[in-house]
Amino acid sequence: MSLTGIKPTGEPHLGNYIGAIRPALELTATYESIYFIADYHALTSIRDRAQFATYTRSVAATWITLGLDPEQTIFYKQSDVPEIFELTWILSCVTGKGLMNRAHAYKAARDRNAESGAADLDAGVNMGLFNYPILMAVDILIMGSDVVPVGQDQVQHVEYAADIAGSFNHLFGSEYSLKIPTALIPAGTGARTMPGTDGRKMSKSYGNTIPLFAPPSRLRKLVRGIVSDSTPVEEPKDPDSSAAFQIYENFATPDDVKDMRVRLEQGGTGWGELKNALYETLEAWLTPLRARYDELVAPGSELDAILAAGAEKARDRARPVLAGARRAIGVDS
Amino acid sequence: MSLTGIKPTGEPHLGNYIGAIRPALELTATYESIYFIADYHALTSIRDRAQFATYTRSVAATWITLGLDPEQTIFYKQSDVPEIFELTWILSCVTGKGLMNRAHAYKAARDRNAESGAADLDAGVNMGLFNYPILMAVDILIMGSDVVPVGQDQVQHVEYAADIAGSFNHLFGSEYSLKIPTALIPAGTGARTMPGTDGRKMSKSYGNTIPLFAPPSRLRKLVRGIVSDSTPVEEPKDPDSSAAFQIYENFATPDDVKDMRVRLEQGGTGWGELKNALYETLEAWLTPLRARYDELVAPGSELDAILAAGAEKARDRARPVLAGARRAIGVDS
Repeated sequence: MSLTGIKPTGEPHLGNYIGAIRPALELTATYESIYFIADYHALTSIRDRAQFATYTRSVAATWITLGLDPEQTIFYKQSDVPEIFELTWILSCVTGKGLMNRAHAYKAARDRNAESGAADLDAGVNMGLFNYPILMAVDILIMGSDVVPVGQDQVQHVEYAADIAGSFNHLFGSEYSLKIPTALIPAGTGARTMPGTDGRKMSKSYGNTIPLFAPPSRLRKLVRGIVSDSTPVEEPKDPDSSAAFQIYENFATPDDVKDMRVRLEQGGTGWGELKNALYETLEAWLTPLRARYDELVAPGSELDAILAAGAEKARDRARPVLAGARRAIGVDS
Repeated sequence: MSLTGIKPTGEPHLGNYIGAIRPALELTATYESIYFIADYHALTSIRDRAQFATYTRSVAATWITLGLDPEQTIFYKQSDVPEIFELTWILSCVTGKGLMNRAHAYKAARDRNAESGAADLDAGVNMGLFNYPILMAVDILIMGSDVVPVGQDQVQHVEYAADIAGSFNHLFGSEYSLKIPTALIPAGTGARTMPGTDGRKMSKSYGNTIPLFAPPSRLRKLVRGIVSDSTPVEEPKDPDSSAAFQIYENFATPDDVKDMRVRLEQGGTGWGELKNALYETLEAWLTPLRARYDELVAPGSELDAILAAGAEKARDRARPVLAGARRAIGVDS
């Protein structure tokens, strides 16, 4: 079984789709797959209740729109599975503080404080951020995950989950033990980065994203605004130097991509024409998806029932894991 | 409403009764009172499931035997109230790590490591110990406690609970906010320390305790073994220098105490006679209690139903607090 966590941190964009959503959904061909929205992880940084609710609903609607099948998988919100939080306490008692001191996200926060000359390296660090790796370990362990697909920068989280489970099993296990997960690093992850409108990697933090479900007028404007050099229309061009072409490669058919490459290389085709083709391609793909997304994201839509049913399935998996842990430590006999 | 937490850490003894149990039970005269067994706190140090279960059951049976009325109060185990752990995550996200760095129990652990020359001051510190003040804050806040009776050394816990609630209310509160608790330091706490068999304060860590429900033969032996000086029987004695007398003062009637004081001061009464009187006094008090305790502590006794009913009452208080917090942060609308 493979588990994918989805942190709701903003409006999903084309880069999310190519880099994270599509590869994660492809896993269903190989693994029994479980997906969850890590809404309580977002609480370490989000302080606005409307934003919190909007992000969560938006990300859930996005994944279903893009092909997540809630009948074939389990899809739930972390905040709908209270068993997670009790197991978090149990496992915090077998987790050395040293492990948390060395966690990447916490160390990065300290480094930022050091760079800015803060007297207290823990300034602005809340205990949610510091405990984050334990909650993430529980997300993985409570579902009995075998593999967790992650990027290279997230391997530590899965290693920590394995360490913490090992520690629990060593101290309390025998009849009952937690399953040790392994990280699954998808092949060719690097190849999946896609540029944003300014040519750098498409990322919310650069403000260069193209949102997935923007209305057509906004989509057109964003595509038009992708950086390009000033090579005149008639001259030959290098398609691989073009951010618009790299995005096009990800969404057009192989034949259309090949055709566009030839036309750009031989001259006579301008960047404007490429962008028009990119817009048309995206719009053709997105038109039906946008309608489905709007339907799902609306308050009171079927999304509520989908997530409620997912929560029940998730809790059916979580309950016996928590019950086993409670017996192992002696809370229950 | 006043809340008292009881950490199950071993066989309850006479010192616990005088220093903690009796004063806590006296609060029912003044406050609506709630008591809970902090079993998940004990998990930061206990690694033996049988011991964990025994301590919990023993402490619950002890308090009921000594007068806790589960009809008039709420009496529950922390591990029966899952709402506590979800709120713990929520509040950890509004708790600065600096607050935990300064917590007494954590600092004491670092000091011990420093004294023993450990290279890593966090050696042996688990995240349960480090997070402990947050869980304690939630214990207090989720019941909507007004006052928390504590010894001077535990005031920090209540201050932290107030700080954390204040932080939550500041960040998320308006329609919903957490009630700010205050510490209640019982008058004359210091006067309530009672010596153990070696004359130092009766404490499990000194190995000088007299367990409450020891069988008569063991009780007699322990009382006989209380330190005393070698003043001959016929000589006058200073009652206040005697550990046995100080224990006697806590359990005999005022008239009997006065009488014994006079007899010791005028000479002719030996320490052995004092110890016999102490044993008889304790035994007269304990005989019926011991039977009740044995009944309650036995597996499958009515204690199970008492704690189950207490858990329901506790959850009835906890649910709306958690629900309010979930709405405040945006997890629920």
